[in-house]
Amino acid sequence: MCCSVFYAQQQPADFVNPFIGTSNYGATYPGPIAPRGMASISPFNVAGPQNKPLEKDSQWLSTPYVHENTFLTGFSQVNLSGVGCPDLGVLLLMPTTGKVETNHLKYGSVYSNEVAKTAYYSSKIDKYNVKAEFTASKRVGVSRFTFPKGQSNILLNLGVGLTNEEGGMLQVVSATEIEGMRNLGSFCYNSPEDAYPVYFVAQFSKPATKFGIWKKPAKYDGVEAQWMGYNGKTRMMDNTTKMVVGDSIGTYFTYQFDKEETVEVKIGVSYVSIANARENLQKETGNKSFDAVYKETYNEWNELLSKIKVEGGTAADKTVFYTALYHTLIHPGTLNDYNGEFPEIKTGKIGKTTGTRYTVFSLWDTYRNLHQLMSLVYPKQQSDMVKSMLEMYDENGWLPKWELNSTETFTMVGDPASIVIADTYLKGIQDFDVQKAYKAMLKGADQLENNPLRPGLEDYIEKGFVTTKNKGSVSTTQEYNASDYAISLLAKALGNKKDYQRFKNRSLSYRKLYDKDLKLLRPRTENGSFYEPFDPLSGANFEENIGFIEGNAWQYAFMVPHDITGLMKLMGGEKGFTNQLQKVFDSKQFDMANEPDIAYPYLFNYVKGEEWRSQELVQKLIKQYFQNKPDGLPGNDDTGTMSAWLVYSMMGIYPLAPGEPKYAITTPVFDSITIELDSEYYKNKKIIIEKESNNQGKIKSMELNGKEYKSYFITHDDFVNGTTLKVIQE
Amino acid sequence: MCCSVFYAQQQPADFVNPFIGTSNYGATYPGPIAPRGMASISPFNVAGPQNKPLEKDSQWLSTPYVHENTFLTGFSQVNLSGVGCPDLGVLLLMPTTGKVETNHLKYGSVYSNEVAKTAYYSSKIDKYNVKAEFTASKRVGVSRFTFPKGQSNILLNLGVGLTNEEGGMLQVVSATEIEGMRNLGSFCYNSPEDAYPVYFVAQFSKPATKFGIWKKPAKYDGVEAQWMGYNGKTRMMDNTTKMVVGDSIGTYFTYQFDKEETVEVKIGVSYVSIANARENLQKETGNKSFDAVYKETYNEWNELLSKIKVEGGTAADKTVFYTALYHTLIHPGTLNDYNGEFPEIKTGKIGKTTGTRYTVFSLWDTYRNLHQLMSLVYPKQQSDMVKSMLEMYDENGWLPKWELNSTETFTMVGDPASIVIADTYLKGIQDFDVQKAYKAMLKGADQLENNPLRPGLEDYIEKGFVTTKNKGSVSTTQEYNASDYAISLLAKALGNKKDYQRFKNRSLSYRKLYDKDLKLLRPRTENGSFYEPFDPLSGANFEENIGFIEGNAWQYAFMVPHDITGLMKLMGGEKGFTNQLQKVFDSKQFDMANEPDIAYPYLFNYVKGEEWRSQELVQKLIKQYFQNKPDGLPGNDDTGTMSAWLVYSMMGIYPLAPGEPKYAITTPVFDSITIELDSEYYKNKKIIIEKESNNQGKIKSMELNGKEYKSYFITHDDFVNGTTLKVIQE
Repeated sequence: MCCSVFYAQQQPADFVNPFIGTSNYGATYPGPIAPRGMASISPFNVAGPQNKPLEKDSQWLSTPYVHENTFLTGFSQVNLSGVGCPDLGVLLLMPTTGKVETNHLKYGSVYSNEVAKTAYYSSKIDKYNVKAEFTASKRVGVSRFTFPKGQSNILLNLGVGLTNEEGGMLQVVSATEIEGMRNLGSFCYNSPEDAYPVYFVAQFSKPATKFGIWKKPAKYDGVEAQWMGYNGKTRMMDNTTKMVVGDSIGTYFTYQFDKEETVEVKIGVSYVSIANARENLQKETGNKSFDAVYKETYNEWNELLSKIKVEGGTAADKTVFYTALYHTLIHPGTLNDYNGEFPEIKTGKIGKTTGTRYTVFSLWDTYRNLHQLMSLVYPKQQSDMVKSMLEMYDENGWLPKWELNSTETFTMVGDPASIVIADTYLKGIQDFDVQKAYKAMLKGADQLENNPLRPGLEDYIEKGFVTTKNKGSVSTTQEYNASDYAISLLAKALGNKKDYQRFKNRSLSYRKLYDKDLKLLRPRTENGSFYEPFDPLSGANFEENIGFIEGNAWQYAFMVPHDITGLMKLMGGEKGFTNQLQKVFDSKQFDMANEPDIAYPYLFNYVKGEEWRSQELVQKLIKQYFQNKPDGLPGNDDTGTMSAWLVYSMMGIYPLAPGEPKYAITTPVFDSITIELDSEYYKNKKIIIEKESNNQGKIKSMELNGKEYKSYFITHDDFVNGTTLKVIQE
Repeated sequence: MCCSVFYAQQQPADFVNPFIGTSNYGATYPGPIAPRGMASISPFNVAGPQNKPLEKDSQWLSTPYVHENTFLTGFSQVNLSGVGCPDLGVLLLMPTTGKVETNHLKYGSVYSNEVAKTAYYSSKIDKYNVKAEFTASKRVGVSRFTFPKGQSNILLNLGVGLTNEEGGMLQVVSATEIEGMRNLGSFCYNSPEDAYPVYFVAQFSKPATKFGIWKKPAKYDGVEAQWMGYNGKTRMMDNTTKMVVGDSIGTYFTYQFDKEETVEVKIGVSYVSIANARENLQKETGNKSFDAVYKETYNEWNELLSKIKVEGGTAADKTVFYTALYHTLIHPGTLNDYNGEFPEIKTGKIGKTTGTRYTVFSLWDTYRNLHQLMSLVYPKQQSDMVKSMLEMYDENGWLPKWELNSTETFTMVGDPASIVIADTYLKGIQDFDVQKAYKAMLKGADQLENNPLRPGLEDYIEKGFVTTKNKGSVSTTQEYNASDYAISLLAKALGNKKDYQRFKNRSLSYRKLYDKDLKLLRPRTENGSFYEPFDPLSGANFEENIGFIEGNAWQYAFMVPHDITGLMKLMGGEKGFTNQLQKVFDSKQFDMANEPDIAYPYLFNYVKGEEWRSQELVQKLIKQYFQNKPDGLPGNDDTGTMSAWLVYSMMGIYPLAPGEPKYAITTPVFDSITIELDSEYYKNKKIIIEKESNNQGKIKSMELNGKEYKSYFITHDDFVNGTTLKVIQE
């Protein structure tokens, strides 16, 4: 019925496998979401001892679902995809049967028959013999439960969530509607004072026979406990329509069915108010059936995914490709309600947009490739993302760093928003206030005191590098270099020669950290000497170390893509550079799962005659790390950054130096790739990458629009203004 | 300024001393309330080890304030007066200075210079040198704090309250406004599932320099605790305007003053919604100053208290009298908002009234005298109370028993609402639907199964008495007798002779419990035999015992005021009766603080020639138990029941058999008492009780309207249609 294929031919959306990334800490979830949706539904199987070791309270776990886990305690209605810190993962909806049980560890169940595809997830809840199906529109999660005959219950538990944040409010409006709110926050176990609410309205297709709210109070120790028969016990507030708040509360809607019956539940969410959550629900899903909502969201996905059409390759190739593209279209997601309202960052005000206010900017990750992909394929979205970043600057006084639902979490290091904005502008997407953007960039780049974006700036300006008194001093220096490089490019484009030169010079200061003996970058202390003792291997696998953030000296050594020629000189020329770069891979210091080194495989393109190494490496890495299975991502998807790497790599191009509108070229996986261009931003209707392959060897020659093309780089302009880039393998 | 006396002459309201009853478990509070107000403000000094033993968590304590305690932790904005179980006592407002401290045990302070009078309370918070003043309109508490120079803070703590109920919601609307909600309930440590919300809006006369919300989260034990630097620590959410919910939260509004400054805080409350709380605040207090609100409420009190004018007696006599009258005008209080809306009982709906919806019906107490006093002096209020009771019947299916903010707590035994309604009707206050009332009474009196009002009814109907399988079997039998007697009187008035006879017969069934040997009522078991072993003294001082509720056999023996003649026969005539009754007092079994025996002192009136005993006893009890000091009530005021006893007793009349419109007469305390009658209900404009006293001995003679009056009883009709009742002492 609902889930038959609507098209005779397999469409891009049909290739998506949402299970990819749900294991190996990929941190994606298999449940439905609309493109850049606010609401999403994920099976929640990370609570309860049955799920150990991948249990939310027993290790650092940032995802509501892990594929190898078996014990399900509900379906969360707001979720983060591919994020390394836990947040959201709340509003757990759970169908049960029989007597109402409110302890999730008791009502939880194993499950089977999982199906996950674009905009749809279903499974069978074994304990209750209930079929659970889910879809979603942008701000509304839609659930459909098929219950057997007898007493059935739908629980909405606000007491359990992915994190330790607590506190919820609930009010049953009628036998078919609940409204409420849940506290969220403490992202990365930081800034608990920035906690924020998510509001919701849940509507049921059939009126409950009985409903109520449960509340689990704290256990009281005083003398009065002897009079409190209910001390610490969960209280069942049957048929209450009163507002209830507390740290551990939930609602139950109960049915008595004399035959198999289905109930659909629509849950609209909002970060502004209950009224907006209700309006979101009404305007987006109104009286639409589950099937109708599914079809609409499927179509929306298919349209977006179809912007890139591929031919050739295996079905598995297409699946990993379109799933990766799907994963790049989740975050940044929508923050504003249907009526345009959204919580501003820091001001406490409710703002209003006529476009889209985006949220979840994991910029330390995404500045490297994801936004570049958006600029190429979805420039309107990218433009709106830049506008959202500028709104944040207006509201908060600073460009975002790691923004989450209008809280600035200041996670990670560097000043990545400048790079994203410069890169966007330099690719010709310029329908935003670039002067304001430039001013915002300068503030982050130049304000010495109380600068939350660049806390080590004083040392950096004075000495050229951040010293070891700051955490991750080398990494941070490199990040500032990268930002400064992007700013220099924008300054040049805006005709500001002085700033161009100033920031270009600043962008090269990493050179002062180069240790000739090690041929690596090395932390320096406040007095200028290299930090001792120094182990270049220390820091791999997210181990904490001096000088580097989430990586070691090898994984950062080449992270100066804007100055590879300069680095080459430091390393003694092309040969020294090639040897040292190859050593990263040979000594297994390359980490596919971590951003600082993900561009390394392409760097051989800088050495004439060594480009084949990039071609071979990229092909190998794709095959090794990106597969059509739950652990088919190398690690955390980082809000689509890993996926964006894959999408580019499978197309045979990669944006090397963020900010610089230029791609490296390697061998595409597919025989033909057609990117449909947005006519509002690009002259050409489409561009085609073709592969002519004989023995699948290294690239023999290339043609651009039928003419021989010698370089292994191509500028964004040449690329989008060309028609066909043909890559001919030996 | 505010607190100077507005009138040259001392007005009734000037005599009120709200400290009376704030010790000796009187359970009144000294802070301001408007007549039958929804909002009230009480200093809250029952938290913290400094206050032991009278500390809320270390013993059964039902009041936010105890006079002998010394450690203040705030000012609660909704409170119960003279109630034996804790509830309300929340929304603790507290002025502090210096750095914000959110732990009430740390920010608490001793205090001095307490002033309490009608509609006004003030004290100095010693730790901070802050003067705190309070007044209230019906639904709005108004506070005025005079701060010294420097940082000042106003805290509103939702984490602490009189009971162990938890859970609140807070949102700062602006630098001058907060809105929120607090869970309440579990009255008498019962029915936690009936918890209900109180909503509020707080407005400040000056914008805060800084504000925020604090939240104390539960301490987390899992592995994640190592990453949670904030684990279990109170978090300060500075300047947040986001909604926050949780079990332990509060707000702080902070000021920087360069000289002494005052800030006024208005807190509107509602049991319906935040919007209604805001409207209550606006409509009642709008832009009015503290002084203006105080003056209005003072005037409202003075007008009501002036319905009874007394002459003669000492100033202390007037103080205890008018304070008692004041205490009878607090509960039942107003439940509906300014716009008429109120939460219905049980239905979950929001009802709307054009009059007043009353709440806090402690009917087991108040049926004995308080409602009779209301019928006499404030018949419109009494009529509205009956209407409220009938609304409850419409909503809940049953007349109320112990109703609290539209929750039926079913505390105590018996079916007292029938008595109140019958008594009201038989006094000529008949502007309510008596047919509905009668139907409601019959349901309570006759429905054998699932009858929450009369759970022991089956035995009672079959055997004439409740057996020991039910708690308090003798007491309950007597209560049912009392109700049945009232119903019989109403049946008669409505012309239903059959019911009249039926219920009259039922009302005498207590006789079956009479133990001729003991000359007391005694519990009987299911097989009909007297319960063994039996100690007639057991049960005093609220000790649990077989057969009796809050009392022993002596304290219940004469609680059949409708059948004293019958009882007299059982006891062997007038002499036996008189001896046995006198024995209660001589053996110190009389408990002035407990309802079952409070009419005993008047029962000597039934024996010709023995009336002097009543006169002497009543005078003695007044002097002994009712004094102008904090422990000047004999015990819990029981929502004004003790006070109503005093008002009547000081006037020299007392309504003996609830339901029967008749008073016993003793010696008034005052030389002259003028009761202004409500012309909507009574023909006469006023009635006067005069005392002509020579040696203050027993009553020599009486005159009604100048004619000799022989009886020591007077019917309600004769009383209100007379003009002057003159009592002449020997």
